[in-house]
Amino acid sequence: MADLIYEQPLNEKIRGYLRLEYLSQQLQANLDCDQQHQCFYPLFSLCELTERCDYRGELLKDLHRQLFALSKVQSLPTLTNDDVDLYIAKLSTARDVLQVSARPGEQIKQDRFLSAIKQRFNMPGASCNFDLPQLHFWLAKPWAVRQAEYQEWMSQFASILLPIKLLLDLTRQSAPYAQHEATAGFYQGNSTESLSLVRVKLAAEQGCYPTISGHKNRYAIHFVQFDKQKHCDQSVQFELSTCP
Amino acid sequence: MADLIYEQPLNEKIRGYLRLEYLSQQLQANLDCDQQHQCFYPLFSLCELTERCDYRGELLKDLHRQLFALSKVQSLPTLTNDDVDLYIAKLSTARDVLQVSARPGEQIKQDRFLSAIKQRFNMPGASCNFDLPQLHFWLAKPWAVRQAEYQEWMSQFASILLPIKLLLDLTRQSAPYAQHEATAGFYQGNSTESLSLVRVKLAAEQGCYPTISGHKNRYAIHFVQFDKQKHCDQSVQFELSTCP
Repeated sequence: MADLIYEQPLNEKIRGYLRLEYLSQQLQANLDCDQQHQCFYPLFSLCELTERCDYRGELLKDLHRQLFALSKVQSLPTLTNDDVDLYIAKLSTARDVLQVSARPGEQIKQDRFLSAIKQRFNMPGASCNFDLPQLHFWLAKPWAVRQAEYQEWMSQFASILLPIKLLLDLTRQSAPYAQHEATAGFYQGNSTESLSLVRVKLAAEQGCYPTISGHKNRYAIHFVQFDKQKHCDQSVQFELSTCP
Repeated sequence: MADLIYEQPLNEKIRGYLRLEYLSQQLQANLDCDQQHQCFYPLFSLCELTERCDYRGELLKDLHRQLFALSKVQSLPTLTNDDVDLYIAKLSTARDVLQVSARPGEQIKQDRFLSAIKQRFNMPGASCNFDLPQLHFWLAKPWAVRQAEYQEWMSQFASILLPIKLLLDLTRQSAPYAQHEATAGFYQGNSTESLSLVRVKLAAEQGCYPTISGHKNRYAIHFVQFDKQKHCDQSVQFELSTCP
């Protein structure tokens, strides 16, 4: 088992971005490998989240802000000048695409096949072939055909998922890791600078995982022993990165 | 694309059995191949369905009834005498196991790890690593370890899933397929005998799927063109089996 990274968002915006990024990774996994009807879970979750909240305005503001910041600084702790230029190019493209794109998920909402199966998907065991014969039919199509359709559905979210990935990458690279110790399984920290993301890295062999809480200027980390699902009262070595 | 079979239960009991069988197939698929956190969907669905309804009483009655019926008849349309003996042996064992088994899912309900993740699993995108760090930890365990744990969770439902599989197999084998034609995409049938399951088999190449409705003495089949998601008004060749 390798090092595991646990992340805790310290504001609602980053929380939303992380959820969408996580769903985006699942979509990709479902595109890479045939996971049958399970491929619909992240797709429908993405539809719900983007319907509940319009990320476009927020993202455009963030893209402008980040582009402005990058044009000022010549480098970040983990980025060379060339990397900075590359990010500027990618962020600009993402911004231009986002500005002219339709609201993501609109087309999926109007798709009769997807709408029908979406309705039943959150009910336990309710996607049997008698509930959704059309799903049974679809799943029998060759994987290459389904894959192409899935890619088309995914692509409708690209205009928001791509900039989210870029912005989160930049956030993560804005602060390096430093070694820390949680005495009796507990650690807390402060920051005068406003933080948006706390990242904790530790070896899975330690047998525990962190539960992190906090807000922009203060955070606390409790380590929990996985096997006992109880607070770990021993010292835990970990790496910490606090990103503005 | 091969022949596809669509099934429609004509009573609540068979409907419930088919749902559980479907979930059971999904559990098996998740045991055969690492599908990451997606393996929890059918497990939690199974917990919910078996909590909502106690299948044990119904199943025991069915097992007794079926054992009695098999001991009378020497063969069914598709079963030889040897098959009948084999089913009698399997059904008897399943009945004995079921009689002494605990209510399925009880242990899972008390598992702190599973309870914690179950709570968040139906919320869209809400199983991020900051929502469920323990899931992030668990998913990093070697697949062989997770597989063994998954098998243990699955096994708690074996006492009901195995007899359901046997009873559904016998139901399916109780009536052979016959060739039929749906004029203008529609077919209806009657039966003086009480039916429990209608099965429709047709080639995927026909580009349509059946929507079946009905009750124990009467059923109707509408064929729908998949591409247009509209009623198919041409003749459709299909095979039909109506099981008591």
